[in-house]
Amino acid sequence: MRVLGIDPGVATIGFGLVEVDRSHQTLLRYGVITTPAGLPLSRRLLQISEDMEELLRQFKPQEMAVEELFFTKNITTGIAVAHGRGVILLAAEQAGVPVYEYTPMQVKQAVAGYGGADKRQVMLMTQRLLKMKEIPRPDDAADALALAICHGRAATSLLNTERVFDPKRYDTR
Amino acid sequence: MRVLGIDPGVATIGFGLVEVDRSHQTLLRYGVITTPAGLPLSRRLLQISEDMEELLRQFKPQEMAVEELFFTKNITTGIAVAHGRGVILLAAEQAGVPVYEYTPMQVKQAVAGYGGADKRQVMLMTQRLLKMKEIPRPDDAADALALAICHGRAATSLLNTERVFDPKRYDTR
Repeated sequence: MRVLGIDPGVATIGFGLVEVDRSHQTLLRYGVITTPAGLPLSRRLLQISEDMEELLRQFKPQEMAVEELFFTKNITTGIAVAHGRGVILLAAEQAGVPVYEYTPMQVKQAVAGYGGADKRQVMLMTQRLLKMKEIPRPDDAADALALAICHGRAATSLLNTERVFDPKRYDTR
Repeated sequence: MRVLGIDPGVATIGFGLVEVDRSHQTLLRYGVITTPAGLPLSRRLLQISEDMEELLRQFKPQEMAVEELFFTKNITTGIAVAHGRGVILLAAEQAGVPVYEYTPMQVKQAVAGYGGADKRQVMLMTQRLLKMKEIPRPDDAADALALAICHGRAATSLLNTERVFDPKRYDTR
């Protein structure tokens, strides 16, 4: 299964495309979408929308994994990220690609083996699982790859008897 | 000038179309877009996107006024609203309609005469300015109409020497 991981944002959106087998992950593509800070938000959202459309058309993922948003620190940044995330979810829906979301803790658990793993441990495991020579850069792309791995493990867990996650659909109250 | 006011959201999006003259406002259309609570967020965003496209095509507004987001109370709701707002700003950008944003205080100031006005005073003034028989319902539609009036007054204020606002473009830090 071809999974596209997305680390949402407005300035930088990480993406990582991984082919997921029962117990293997194969790196296909990764990188970031960036939008210029000087542009009005609506222009940046348009660029994100167009770039996401292009990615989805080129990569043809079967499923998408997007990080869930939590805000305790910077609400202003969080609001901007949520604008971008809305446009990303819209692009997925328009392309007919099912979206699953995971908390950072679920990603750590799935990739590094425990929810309390630090960022570097997750990155090192991502590198190792995808047989990369170096830790993927930038961080947003590494996060996106970890999300794709996490979803791959969750989605195939019934087959390989690994840890089971419930990839729950995002909804509002 | 034909101004479309939008009260952003995910469950209910208010809209109000007002023709704004130097010192007059003429009500054209108002109402709400609603999305079913049972649907996943991405499906609701798709519906908002399609309905906004339809509104923009039918109404052909020259400018759009959207409420600015502030969150001190319910961050979870705020995050969902910001997803919807992202899709709304995207629709405006795709249609080539410039977007201006106003805080609730700016709207109160412009419509009711002072920033500390309560919700009911703003609604009564909205009703009066638009020569409506009753207070516009539901609240989201009334808020959208007040936004359109606010923008009309801000945008034409240099002509009629009324209070001047600086309609600033939304941007991220």
